[in-house]
Amino acid sequence: MHAVDRFREDFDQFLSERVKPREPRNLYDPMIYILNLGGKRVRPVLVLMAAEIFGSDHRKALNAALAIETFHNFSLIHDDIMDAAPLRRGNTTVHERWDINTGILSGDAMLIYAYRLFESYTGETFRELAMLFSKTAIEVCEGQQYDIDFETREEVTIEEYIKMIEYKTAVLVGASLKMGAIVAGASQEDRNAIYEFGRLLGIAFQLQDDYLDAFGDPETFGKQVGGDIIENKKTFLYLTALARSQREEAQQLEHLYSISPRDASGKIEAVKALFEGSGAAELTRQEIQKYTVKAFEVLKTLHIPEEKKELLRKYGSSLMDREV
Amino acid sequence: MHAVDRFREDFDQFLSERVKPREPRNLYDPMIYILNLGGKRVRPVLVLMAAEIFGSDHRKALNAALAIETFHNFSLIHDDIMDAAPLRRGNTTVHERWDINTGILSGDAMLIYAYRLFESYTGETFRELAMLFSKTAIEVCEGQQYDIDFETREEVTIEEYIKMIEYKTAVLVGASLKMGAIVAGASQEDRNAIYEFGRLLGIAFQLQDDYLDAFGDPETFGKQVGGDIIENKKTFLYLTALARSQREEAQQLEHLYSISPRDASGKIEAVKALFEGSGAAELTRQEIQKYTVKAFEVLKTLHIPEEKKELLRKYGSSLMDREV
Repeated sequence: MHAVDRFREDFDQFLSERVKPREPRNLYDPMIYILNLGGKRVRPVLVLMAAEIFGSDHRKALNAALAIETFHNFSLIHDDIMDAAPLRRGNTTVHERWDINTGILSGDAMLIYAYRLFESYTGETFRELAMLFSKTAIEVCEGQQYDIDFETREEVTIEEYIKMIEYKTAVLVGASLKMGAIVAGASQEDRNAIYEFGRLLGIAFQLQDDYLDAFGDPETFGKQVGGDIIENKKTFLYLTALARSQREEAQQLEHLYSISPRDASGKIEAVKALFEGSGAAELTRQEIQKYTVKAFEVLKTLHIPEEKKELLRKYGSSLMDREV
Repeated sequence: MHAVDRFREDFDQFLSERVKPREPRNLYDPMIYILNLGGKRVRPVLVLMAAEIFGSDHRKALNAALAIETFHNFSLIHDDIMDAAPLRRGNTTVHERWDINTGILSGDAMLIYAYRLFESYTGETFRELAMLFSKTAIEVCEGQQYDIDFETREEVTIEEYIKMIEYKTAVLVGASLKMGAIVAGASQEDRNAIYEFGRLLGIAFQLQDDYLDAFGDPETFGKQVGGDIIENKKTFLYLTALARSQREEAQQLEHLYSISPRDASGKIEAVKALFEGSGAAELTRQEIQKYTVKAFEVLKTLHIPEEKKELLRKYGSSLMDREV
């Protein structure tokens, strides 16, 4: 079996053993529900992979992997409430299936439960995992707040946007890998390097997500193509297009981002033309490439056998290898 | 200066130094706002008092005290959203002053921030504080869930009710004291005993709160007298009255708890008469007394000088010494 599949299977097995119905049901059922909606389990796989790469039995990292996945799903429940989202991975969101109060409280319990999962580790390992987790979790909250703030802010710089996606998405990828390294007792240098690999890859992945939202193949891209444009979301594409456009095109773009036509197809095509014409589409592809290359450069510095690096490189590439 | 006042002043000083405006403002301003609404600071005072009682400089426990107060206020923000409460300590609640999404996300950040405050402690102290905190925090969530569940449940036993208030309120009082003991390096036996003191006193306090809600002096009781009756809340008084009433009185009580008249004064008087007539009022006073006596019994077992016990006894008594 491919290593990634084995990690995923071991994780799902562990999840089904650890997360079982308990009282009060209204607190814990939503947690079981969302953790079993599936998904690619990217973050827990990264925790387990990093543990193995640094010479540990990957099963020693299962509790840390479940902590990361539980935290990620806590943030999905609360984000879905904030976005009033009806669906998550094609299924009813927690606050729709139960109600908003249940979503708030179950989410809170999941955040605390995630911390409790580190209690299977002792001494400095526990301390380092919990500290990295807290630092990452607060950054994810800050990223979410910036994302909300940007919706109503006139001016957002490209640097601010990159910091937002770094906090909201990328630091959790870096932390997943670093947790595996901590469990395996890797050196401080290697811990920091693998975190950096994850952080850079996470930014590349999110930029690619933005790009695919406009230019992805509707057949293969999981979400509705043009969704960000419909929602007037200030993505890297939009901010770059605005910065690179002549006055007239910039005004056109700002106008398009101020309207919400019933049939959005004309707006989507017009915005995409401006993304292309301004060079923003090309610049975004370059930026994705830049972060991906930087990530793989960092990989070279790790003090591990070449075939271990290859495992990370292959999995990293597979995550980036979507229909662009 | 009285010891309690000194603890409170040192805590408020520490709070104002540690909790300052920072970006993103919409995430952190609500935290600063609610932490500065005041209140008696009961929980942080208990942390500091316990640290001093077990021979430590109480200032060593300031971070733990702030963690407990931050957690308590996180739970207030989320509870206020769930209850759609407009006011907290006479001021606008966070979700009213900002909005629900801000309340959810700021609350999340406060829960994480509370964990981060333990990072000033090292080794086993950090581990024990974080573990006690997680255990307590999840119990508080479970207590809140039971409280919500009881609103719509037909049958609630008195044991279930006691467990609910224990989880929702009392364990945090016990944990506050135990955290001070942990910081001071008290023995395991003393840590457990002081936790038990706080847990029992917390139950007594909450039962008294229920009692005063019906029978308190409107002049001195902080909240609206009869509030629980208006809301048909299944308190200890109500559950005891129902269990102790003859069939006819029980049906009367159930009927009164099914109506919501515009002018509630008649309903309040009728319910209070049933609380008195069934003996539930007297039984509640006895129950409060029982838990208070049990709490002070536990105090005797602590391995500390008599004057230290006296400090705890006096503060505990002052908390219970309200207009009954």
